[in-house]
Amino acid sequence: YWNMDRLKLFTSTYVWDRQKHLCSPDLAEAHLIISRGFISSEAKRSSDYELQWLILTHCFFFSSNFTQVPHLAGTKENLHLAQQIQAEWKEFGLDSVQLVHYDVLLSYPDDTKPNYISIIDEHGNEIFNTSLSEPPPPGYEAVKDVVPPYSAFSAQGMPEGELVYVNYGRTEDFFKIEREMGINCTGKIVIARYGKIFRGNKVKNAELAGAKGVILYSDPADYCAPGTDPYPNGWNLPGGGAQRGNILNLNGAGDPLTPGYPAKEYTYRLDKAHGVGLPKIPVHPIGYDDAETLLRKVKMHIHNNNEVRRIYNVIGIIKGTVEPDRYVILGGHRDSWVFGGIDPQSGAAVVHEIVRSFGKLKRKGWRPRRTVIFASWDAEEFGLFGSTEWAEENAKVLQARGVAYINADSSIEGNYTLRVDCTPLMYRLVYSLTKEIPSPDEGFEGKSLYESWYKKIHQENIRKINKLGSGNDFEVFFQRLGIASGRARYSKNWVKKYSSYPVYHSVYETYEIVEKFYDPTFKNHLTVAQVRGGLVFELANSAVLPFDCRDYASALSNYAHIIYNLSRNHEEELATYNVSFDALFSAVKNFTEVAASFHERLQQIDSNNPLAVRSLNDQLMFLERAFIDPLGLPGRPFYRHIIFAPSSHNKYAGESFPGIYDAMFDIESKADQREAWEEVKRQISIAAFTVQASSRNTERSRININNIIISVD
Amino acid sequence: YWNMDRLKLFTSTYVWDRQKHLCSPDLAEAHLIISRGFISSEAKRSSDYELQWLILTHCFFFSSNFTQVPHLAGTKENLHLAQQIQAEWKEFGLDSVQLVHYDVLLSYPDDTKPNYISIIDEHGNEIFNTSLSEPPPPGYEAVKDVVPPYSAFSAQGMPEGELVYVNYGRTEDFFKIEREMGINCTGKIVIARYGKIFRGNKVKNAELAGAKGVILYSDPADYCAPGTDPYPNGWNLPGGGAQRGNILNLNGAGDPLTPGYPAKEYTYRLDKAHGVGLPKIPVHPIGYDDAETLLRKVKMHIHNNNEVRRIYNVIGIIKGTVEPDRYVILGGHRDSWVFGGIDPQSGAAVVHEIVRSFGKLKRKGWRPRRTVIFASWDAEEFGLFGSTEWAEENAKVLQARGVAYINADSSIEGNYTLRVDCTPLMYRLVYSLTKEIPSPDEGFEGKSLYESWYKKIHQENIRKINKLGSGNDFEVFFQRLGIASGRARYSKNWVKKYSSYPVYHSVYETYEIVEKFYDPTFKNHLTVAQVRGGLVFELANSAVLPFDCRDYASALSNYAHIIYNLSRNHEEELATYNVSFDALFSAVKNFTEVAASFHERLQQIDSNNPLAVRSLNDQLMFLERAFIDPLGLPGRPFYRHIIFAPSSHNKYAGESFPGIYDAMFDIESKADQREAWEEVKRQISIAAFTVQASSRNTERSRININNIIISVD
Repeated sequence: YWNMDRLKLFTSTYVWDRQKHLCSPDLAEAHLIISRGFISSEAKRSSDYELQWLILTHCFFFSSNFTQVPHLAGTKENLHLAQQIQAEWKEFGLDSVQLVHYDVLLSYPDDTKPNYISIIDEHGNEIFNTSLSEPPPPGYEAVKDVVPPYSAFSAQGMPEGELVYVNYGRTEDFFKIEREMGINCTGKIVIARYGKIFRGNKVKNAELAGAKGVILYSDPADYCAPGTDPYPNGWNLPGGGAQRGNILNLNGAGDPLTPGYPAKEYTYRLDKAHGVGLPKIPVHPIGYDDAETLLRKVKMHIHNNNEVRRIYNVIGIIKGTVEPDRYVILGGHRDSWVFGGIDPQSGAAVVHEIVRSFGKLKRKGWRPRRTVIFASWDAEEFGLFGSTEWAEENAKVLQARGVAYINADSSIEGNYTLRVDCTPLMYRLVYSLTKEIPSPDEGFEGKSLYESWYKKIHQENIRKINKLGSGNDFEVFFQRLGIASGRARYSKNWVKKYSSYPVYHSVYETYEIVEKFYDPTFKNHLTVAQVRGGLVFELANSAVLPFDCRDYASALSNYAHIIYNLSRNHEEELATYNVSFDALFSAVKNFTEVAASFHERLQQIDSNNPLAVRSLNDQLMFLERAFIDPLGLPGRPFYRHIIFAPSSHNKYAGESFPGIYDAMFDIESKADQREAWEEVKRQISIAAFTVQASSRNTERSRININNIIISVD
Repeated sequence: YWNMDRLKLFTSTYVWDRQKHLCSPDLAEAHLIISRGFISSEAKRSSDYELQWLILTHCFFFSSNFTQVPHLAGTKENLHLAQQIQAEWKEFGLDSVQLVHYDVLLSYPDDTKPNYISIIDEHGNEIFNTSLSEPPPPGYEAVKDVVPPYSAFSAQGMPEGELVYVNYGRTEDFFKIEREMGINCTGKIVIARYGKIFRGNKVKNAELAGAKGVILYSDPADYCAPGTDPYPNGWNLPGGGAQRGNILNLNGAGDPLTPGYPAKEYTYRLDKAHGVGLPKIPVHPIGYDDAETLLRKVKMHIHNNNEVRRIYNVIGIIKGTVEPDRYVILGGHRDSWVFGGIDPQSGAAVVHEIVRSFGKLKRKGWRPRRTVIFASWDAEEFGLFGSTEWAEENAKVLQARGVAYINADSSIEGNYTLRVDCTPLMYRLVYSLTKEIPSPDEGFEGKSLYESWYKKIHQENIRKINKLGSGNDFEVFFQRLGIASGRARYSKNWVKKYSSYPVYHSVYETYEIVEKFYDPTFKNHLTVAQVRGGLVFELANSAVLPFDCRDYASALSNYAHIIYNLSRNHEEELATYNVSFDALFSAVKNFTEVAASFHERLQQIDSNNPLAVRSLNDQLMFLERAFIDPLGLPGRPFYRHIIFAPSSHNKYAGESFPGIYDAMFDIESKADQREAWEEVKRQISIAAFTVQASSRNTERSRININNIIISVD
């Protein structure tokens, strides 16, 4: 039910031959590909190819189709989109496609009592009110059900009082304000600009400082790039635009009322007052036009309601032939604050395209070796609820059978180069895959994605691959369950690391901003589809899992040195309290040796012995799992990965050896220094044990009963 | 280095032919067997047999050898025994045998300041002191290093005061004393008789009641059976004998200073004052001669010391041929309070004998399909430390690869019939195995063990197989890690359920009490060796794991009805607070259906497809694991099995649906009834979820994405 002719114009077909060169089974399409420079000359000459996989860039259409109306979680529009996706995935040829629902706590503005901020004069009169909604983008004036900007899960309330500017609201900002400037935020309303860190961390910091309300605003310094105009003439945020978003501090709990368990009909729910991570004070976001008007004394009017509503994941499956009980998961969210032009539909379109391509392959008789699960998550925006509840419901099988999780939120947040965060196990897979994918970048015609990516990040002197933090649906899979995970998208030139594209979570995130400014030919979408789809394909289809444990060894060594170097800011205390990192370094050394010998063994594998292959694959699969401690990190029971966690100061960022890092953070200000350093020692011991124990996972198929070779000097 | 001729006299050799009849490869030995009536006439005629396994009852010798001197944990004598066992297991032919050490908190009396209780007069003069040691048994007068009776981990102190008799010190005893009799125990010294429940629970109850000291004594009513004399003329406890034992409330933590982590050199230790489960008041055990002397006002003199000492496990391995990465574990402890005639050496001798038999088979070219691990645990008596620390150290591989754990403490605690506690998964294996083992009982010549066992327990109207509780080394494997576990021993006629044999943990537990009274021909040892060894053999060698999930379904249904019926004592509250068990019953129903269809599928398995067999075996292996909740039970983070836990009122006993049971226990006395019943609802929800989720584990090899069929009426 879409125009196939128009479609044709925008599509290109790729297949891989046996040598993994790109070529096409269809001359007309191949011509198109070649004319765009997406194919190497060797591949062009290749004729004896074997179908391996194929991607048709229908992304442009899917993206347009998914962004016609708002798809806020918990609304009937988002259920309808789930049903449409279910129907289409069935049509694409998956073995099964189901809707899976949960009843979770969501938050919405009150239709009858709008949220706003007033400036009040000395008599308490409201002399200025912030705007109740964003001016609609051209062409969308008639769209109903655009939720006005709000901070989901804000407490209700109408606090008034003095306003304190807290910069980005980071931990270090509050340190500066309270400790250096001597400003007390207790009983004040604070105003923080968006950017740098997850907004929930800003709100938590404000609460800890004693604030009675938080105003969040988008500063032009962060949300207007030089050299472009506000939307619709450019891709900057208009002055009337504001960033929606949830402000929870869930620490991985999922639905606030059912922490640890799926939010099904039978599940016990905490009462709403005791939900996990809910802020206790009113919070509201505004645009920069309103922000520059605000004076010293303001009053907030916040009337959002928390209510339990039903959400829907779409779960599609292609069953594996050889190992149906091993799962590779591709998941991305479907719900959007408004139109979701970038977030998430630039990603959901790519998932749709990958499903279609896998379906097409399947119709030709192909099946993956392992089972592939495709997921369209709901209510990501409210706190990763769809993915977390599903993983909670299926935790036991996922722990036993989950090989990898690939995340698929926004495919583009810029058009400069690739951006990848993943487990060290996947580094080499990412490198080898990107070497086989053509670069979509101007000036890199005929070159590989790896080449343009490497050049550009080398130039900017930033890391190729980053640690996984959170703020997206991989969280529960990686940080709670220990399933090897990765994410990839096209990104901007990251000078400022953790801010997003300017119109992020505003009404101006439309299909048109993508088509006009970000990716007019959808070539970056195609590239991201090739990366995400290629990862899924290789993970699901390689006889031996494409994980390299030697890279985990290097990463561990790197992180151990980083945390040790950090500790050396406290040389005196290290001596006084007898703090040593020797056990950790020794464990990393053991891990490194075991990883090297495991890798050797992997090269000599008898590929005709299915149980031997399975056994080694199980060791690779369970390596990430071995970093999970069921006791969790201190105060964060659902963050259980000992090597990585979302930063305690910024949910978006990843922290390595988070237990040790947090124990040392701001340690000089702790009242009981001995107790504080004892906790550091405890965390070093847990990290050393976890690294040591995980190396046992990759040892020869028996329990290592040697004494641990931890050298205690 | 032992007399092989003497040995011959006491040995008998069994092998199984293909039809699982007992017969012997050695005519002389076969003659001996037949003359003892241990072999069926069919088997006698069988000549075309295939070696399957073999047990030579060297138990008598091993038992005698292991009980010559005390083997208290943390002493050099127990290290020497570890080294001896290591050397002998190597000689027996295991692939590897290693000592694995941990440094754990143990407790010993002070050599210079003996523990005792005084009767004091009104002036505070000590007019009577309890004895400092037990009169030695004949032949052991010269043995040094017999630790006097003490309560390991008692606090130090010399409290004096009024004595209150608290019967067995059970929860219900204290309810009666405090609520019905109106006696306030605060500031009193309480005296409790041993028996019925684990002594640590008695101490905990006394502490909760405010007592400042606890005296534990063995009452003749519990420790002297009618019709026999005190040792050495009979097997009753002499009046000067007393029961040693630890009085910790660890709830599965292992070493009190390193909860959750192995007690290695690099491990962070809590300081001794903050160890898990340590009692805060002095506790001391006495015999009944002293007990009947005690008057109203007493003074305790307790000087035990807690100290970190090194303990040693012996870990022996036979590597599996087909699935070396699947583990079947046979473990039992080696440390004893004094000579350990029954506890543990009647069990350690059987483990030794099984290792020897497996070694003999291996020398003939046999190897098990899966890897078998044999363990001689240390410091079980102090709190299951050897097994728990080892499982903590190897938790990650055990979770991924552990098929089953068979426990091997005392083989005999009586000579009446078999006693088995195990996971429902093993019920049928236990039944089929005992049908193939000849009964050692008088009057059952030529009959199977199953037959005599069934007759005797049927007569007493008790359950054939009981729930696993704790108080032994299977705890960490079953209750924390969710590895299918079982234990078997020869037992007395259980009228009184949880008391032990009279000389338990006294100096009178000698080799001679076994040889004279309990098992003169060691035929019961042999039977227990056949059961334990047979379980290990079948679990390690069957192509398809001998687990039947349908029995788990029946058990779950039974437990659900039990807990529901218990709730009906509160019909009014069930209605008022809207408490329903529907979700639990629905989940059990789903589990039952899935178990039945899984079992069907198992019958149709293509045994020529190694990956298909492995996949189904993995589902069977992970079924027990699926009952584990990483969040643990309320207040007991290391008891994670949602279906079974050690009773909160008696560590020895198993409780089913412990979360719900504990939430409802004594609920009428809770101040906030609504809150109390909300907790019941929460626990029902967790149980329902866990049962439902575990059924997914045995579904077809894909994630079940159907909506859960929980009916909410």
